[in-house]
Amino acid sequence: MIRVVCKGKLKPGANVEEYLSLARQVVAETRKEQGCKMYTYHQDINDPSIITTIEEWDDEEAIKEHNQSGHVLKIVPKLREMRESTEINLYREV
Amino acid sequence: MIRVVCKGKLKPGANVEEYLSLARQVVAETRKEQGCKMYTYHQDINDPSIITTIEEWDDEEAIKEHNQSGHVLKIVPKLREMRESTEINLYREV
Repeated sequence: MIRVVCKGKLKPGANVEEYLSLARQVVAETRKEQGCKMYTYHQDINDPSIITTIEEWDDEEAIKEHNQSGHVLKIVPKLREMRESTEINLYREV
Repeated sequence: MIRVVCKGKLKPGANVEEYLSLARQVVAETRKEQGCKMYTYHQDINDPSIITTIEEWDDEEAIKEHNQSGHVLKIVPKLREMRESTEINLYREV
């Protein structure tokens, strides 16, 4: 099992509600993917412009398939355009 | 419910096994805390010097109590001494 943390910092002035509205479309489709065990969006309590997913996947293959899925290819570039930075880490529990 | 991601980057040459051995002592005690729902250590698949906890807590009060606990006050400074950087984010699911 792999956990992914994708931490995004929105650009100054980016509309958080618009961002989350797009994100919810990705969530709805991603949770249908076979290898996806958890896919949740979070907002930082102290900085509302930090929006982070915490994800659980069966394996790296499932993540690769996710990254090539229609919903990711269609929506994620729009999300990325609203962020000034992105950190993605893939983790194994130790 | 609050999720916490604490991402640490170890100093060059720091002993990862020594770090994890100390960390396991914190894990064992922390999981006994009443407000703690999840407390897991992870290692980055692509950079073994990145060690991250993903945590779930009932509320901010539980996190404050954790931060004042004997095991945190005793062991966490030793972990911090082995890291060159630390990012801590508190999140609410959105």
